[in-house]
Amino acid sequence: MSYIKNNYPDILVIADAKRGDIGNTSKMYAKEFFERMDFDAVTVAPYVGEDSVTPFLEYKDKWVVLLVLTSNRGADDFQYHNEDGIRLFERVLTVSRKWGTIDNLMYVVGATRAEMLKDIRKIVPEHFLLVPGVGAQGGSLREVAKYGLNTKCGLLVNSSRGIIFADNTENFDKTAGEKAREIQREMELYLAQHKLI
Amino acid sequence: MSYIKNNYPDILVIADAKRGDIGNTSKMYAKEFFERMDFDAVTVAPYVGEDSVTPFLEYKDKWVVLLVLTSNRGADDFQYHNEDGIRLFERVLTVSRKWGTIDNLMYVVGATRAEMLKDIRKIVPEHFLLVPGVGAQGGSLREVAKYGLNTKCGLLVNSSRGIIFADNTENFDKTAGEKAREIQREMELYLAQHKLI
Repeated sequence: MSYIKNNYPDILVIADAKRGDIGNTSKMYAKEFFERMDFDAVTVAPYVGEDSVTPFLEYKDKWVVLLVLTSNRGADDFQYHNEDGIRLFERVLTVSRKWGTIDNLMYVVGATRAEMLKDIRKIVPEHFLLVPGVGAQGGSLREVAKYGLNTKCGLLVNSSRGIIFADNTENFDKTAGEKAREIQREMELYLAQHKLI
Repeated sequence: MSYIKNNYPDILVIADAKRGDIGNTSKMYAKEFFERMDFDAVTVAPYVGEDSVTPFLEYKDKWVVLLVLTSNRGADDFQYHNEDGIRLFERVLTVSRKWGTIDNLMYVVGATRAEMLKDIRKIVPEHFLLVPGVGAQGGSLREVAKYGLNTKCGLLVNSSRGIIFADNTENFDKTAGEKAREIQREMELYLAQHKLI
């Protein structure tokens, strides 16, 4: 973190820690990630509810990235639990958007369910969405852009294993760079098509 | 952990870490908590689903303690989301009990909703329940015993802040000991009433 902050101070750094504990404990996690380690954002799981999330939202210029729809197979187990037509992931959106603002709260929506972004954009048209699952997990960047882009972009697309595990020879650094540029060029194409650049 | 394992090898040690991540990451968390740190159990959040939990269940003689109903106010936000009469916390029980056995999977049920233990015992009569919220959070041990005990006991009741924060003078250690014995004596009473000792 010291290296990143010293050399690339403009890069947003997210701790994908998926915390979510009672208020007392979340407060200490927030202190650790935001004060001591100086992360800009931390991913948080919603199951424990409001008081597990708000301690993270009390920090100025820091972000909570709340899990909504994850990119793994197990997402089907609980996230679609449906009360009167409102699926759990939709309830997480409608309830939690009151806890923060579009400037300190974003949402994790896995790329592997890109078509769900249409329903999600109806509930949170302005929030940033962090989209994992492009790359190693098979999500389509084209679909993500199609359903997820809003008038200001509003997407933060993440490929982890598709970049850092692309090559395990001594050229891993160059391959990682190429893979990162590849996805960036593809994203630029969609941004241009949507007249966002 | 070295001190506890060397001096009190029979004490079950639970990492109340509330992890819950995609399989790849959960596998590394399991390795860290069970191999390197040698915890006996770890608490896990259910939102991310089966593949976020099963990596922890692959360790022999180790336990997963899955969050079902937490003891905080925010428990109301999502845990009662109701599909056809099945509340989310009940679905977590019915779905997850197939992932493990009564010998490697237990559930967190907050003491602050002790009457819910009746409904929970209908779904998981034999599983161990880890019950936080007695003490500082105001849960009643009597109610917990009434609704939660099964034929083999099946309860692991936890008071944390009520013991470790009971006294902030230099006598904190003695007061903590007294508070712990106090709750233990009360529990013995209920165990005797239920003919479990």
